Amino acid sequence: YPSLFFPCSLSLPTTPHYLFTSFLCDTMPVNISDDDLTVTPVKQTGKASALGKVKGPVFSPNAGIGMADKENDSPVKKATPKKKKTVEETYAKLTQYEHVVQRPDTYIGSVEPVTQRLWVFDKDTKKMVERDVTYPPGLYKIFDEVLVNAADNHQRDPDTNRIKVEIDAEAGTISIMNNGSGIPIELHKVEGVYVPELIFGHLLTGSNFSDEDAKVTGGRNGYGAKLANIFSKEFIVETNSKEKGKVYKQVWTENMTKCAEPTIKAGGKTDWTKVTFTPDLSKFSMEKMDDDIIALFTKRVYDIAGCLAKGVKVHLNGDLIPIKSFQDYCNLYLAEKTPCVYEKVNDRWEVCICESAEGQTQQVSFSNGIWTMKGGTHVDHVLARVVKPLTEALKKKKADVKAHQIKAHLFVFVNALVVNPAFDSQTKETLT
Amino acid sequence: YPSLFFPCSLSLPTTPHYLFTSFLCDTMPVNISDDDLTVTPVKQTGKASALGKVKGPVFSPNAGIGMADKENDSPVKKATPKKKKTVEETYAKLTQYEHVVQRPDTYIGSVEPVTQRLWVFDKDTKKMVERDVTYPPGLYKIFDEVLVNAADNHQRDPDTNRIKVEIDAEAGTISIMNNGSGIPIELHKVEGVYVPELIFGHLLTGSNFSDEDAKVTGGRNGYGAKLANIFSKEFIVETNSKEKGKVYKQVWTENMTKCAEPTIKAGGKTDWTKVTFTPDLSKFSMEKMDDDIIALFTKRVYDIAGCLAKGVKVHLNGDLIPIKSFQDYCNLYLAEKTPCVYEKVNDRWEVCICESAEGQTQQVSFSNGIWTMKGGTHVDHVLARVVKPLTEALKKKKADVKAHQIKAHLFVFVNALVVNPAFDSQTKETLT
Repeated sequence: YPSLFFPCSLSLPTTPHYLFTSFLCDTMPVNISDDDLTVTPVKQTGKASALGKVKGPVFSPNAGIGMADKENDSPVKKATPKKKKTVEETYAKLTQYEHVVQRPDTYIGSVEPVTQRLWVFDKDTKKMVERDVTYPPGLYKIFDEVLVNAADNHQRDPDTNRIKVEIDAEAGTISIMNNGSGIPIELHKVEGVYVPELIFGHLLTGSNFSDEDAKVTGGRNGYGAKLANIFSKEFIVETNSKEKGKVYKQVWTENMTKCAEPTIKAGGKTDWTKVTFTPDLSKFSMEKMDDDIIALFTKRVYDIAGCLAKGVKVHLNGDLIPIKSFQDYCNLYLAEKTPCVYEKVNDRWEVCICESAEGQTQQVSFSNGIWTMKGGTHVDHVLARVVKPLTEALKKKKADVKAHQIKAHLFVFVNALVVNPAFDSQTKETLT
Repeated sequence: YPSLFFPCSLSLPTTPHYLFTSFLCDTMPVNISDDDLTVTPVKQTGKASALGKVKGPVFSPNAGIGMADKENDSPVKKATPKKKKTVEETYAKLTQYEHVVQRPDTYIGSVEPVTQRLWVFDKDTKKMVERDVTYPPGLYKIFDEVLVNAADNHQRDPDTNRIKVEIDAEAGTISIMNNGSGIPIELHKVEGVYVPELIFGHLLTGSNFSDEDAKVTGGRNGYGAKLANIFSKEFIVETNSKEKGKVYKQVWTENMTKCAEPTIKAGGKTDWTKVTFTPDLSKFSMEKMDDDIIALFTKRVYDIAGCLAKGVKVHLNGDLIPIKSFQDYCNLYLAEKTPCVYEKVNDRWEVCICESAEGQTQQVSFSNGIWTMKGGTHVDHVLARVVKPLTEALKKKKADVKAHQIKAHLFVFVNALVVNPAFDSQTKETLT
């Protein structure tokens, strides 16, 4: 391949700020062709797909995108199979379930590991650290769906004041319990199944579809827990109703394809709901939950403890998480005695701002308990509110500092409850 | 609300670069509470929903997020309707179609206008300009789905060498034609309908599900054109088969709910497929296609002309777009004689790099013809390939310039064909 040369004709500003760019003129060859990172089939690890329908992943784990394909550099292979396919072979209509399994990235994000620089919980220092984390976003997502469901229960039933999470990396099992009022243990006359079976085992079901009531829950789309069920080897729902004195239990296996009859027994005196699931790691090219995914799960449990600090005590593997306020939570990210300003704007918004040590804007933000990794309108809104008056005040002092320069030195934390939020996708990385 | 003060104890570096931050110590009040931007119901404009199922939008057009709600500042309104709802009223199971209509943001992005700084085509200067554009992302998306389908046909059938787009803002109608081999005019024996009806009028259908063949098309998920159909008042498919000497035509109306029987007649001597649709603007709180959305549509037609410059001539409203190479396309973004380097890495990758005038990284990138607004792994990959050797070369010269500083001064254009790409969501803004 030809090499890439920066032309010497570049005329660049020579202020100190731009000094380095003059080096671009040294006609340094920068070969951007790619020999080591190629599109190669991935060895399937772990248990074979129970459904036998997941197609080979696109890229190797940990690898970037191959620009060249060793096998077949050029031209692009056109789809010209030797035997002409029939229209029935070429065109297919999928069920919703098949679509989830064949196109998981539309629903839970990539099932292949990606490496991203993220904030995670460090178990030694008990602080948040920003570091490279390699994890399958889809696995993170199914954990999150179940966790956010538990957190949402505090918005639906303010008496929900305890969430208990157990993560057993050895057994590969996760359980998440909340003590709010549970799911009605009643038969749904239209669908002919009990409500817990309907909302945990049937796609496109839920109680969050009506936008007539203003909702501040994170779940909205009716996929949520079902996605966790589909990508799990085993998925168990238990719910106890104080009012009815009943406890309901139901077990799904083999990626939601097998559903046992529920058992309904006389129950205890408290309300609670518990979901226990064993993610099907083979679907994520993993054999075992590793330190990175555990650090990420742990971070999310701390997130919920921070977002719901005013009303819910959160336990992880038996220990109460020692966070009493959103400010406590923010301090997990900051060196001791870092100056920062905190403001509880109202019952729906909490904001904390300090200086970014990175020289670029940093943000940790939540909308209805969902970690909006990439920020979104809630973060933009807070930044705009802070940056504009600062810029104006500086202008009055004859200092021509641009808004983006001020922005670059801020680290903002936002904990927002937004009514009927819209996200960029089911993966909800950005609030729109 | 309490005001937000920056504490005076901040100890900041005093290099010129950080000078402005000292002003933060002036204890300037920055009240981030929000009085003017509140969550208010939006007046429905235009024709009422034909389906009567779209719920009220979340935020006002053009408005940010309200931090406070004038009507009900606090506490958060809990959902406690007076009459207790039955489980049948509370829990619902939707059809796929109902889910698309009730949760459009999962499929096409927001149906409410957003304001974003984007590159669009300026009809006066005939160049791309970056400016604030107010548009409903969902409307952009349905146009794009149909356009990318036409572009994909060049990957499936290399003889596709012409795409013709007509946009009639007055009539509110769009048509997109390509001259590649069309959709088989055959009855699908399993589904019992003609193939064009199956793939344009039934959800979760398509020919792009198999990942066994390496595909470099943009469409993958089986929603595509159906979403355009659902969000259109009228949707017409015409396809002509040279081989069979037949032309097929079918018309859907009322958001895909009404489907007329197809007509099949003796056809002409060339292959072509044409989709003509009238977006249901009432679903996007619009009465008329305005300059912003037209500028964005036009940009996308130019994008396709740039991405497929080597093989396809693209016409817009009767005029051939004068782009003969990806380099020609990149020049639409640059002032005359801007120094830049162009490299055709191989048949699948083209890259163009120049200096960013903005002081921050700029990128215009495509994966399989899809405009990845937010970039993704393909852009990161190119940047990493360029930045790393530059950083190392500078280090050898004892210049300690950080990678992110170099990055901040680059403007990269990437035109990539990626095999079986994974995107962050159906809206495909980021390549994962």
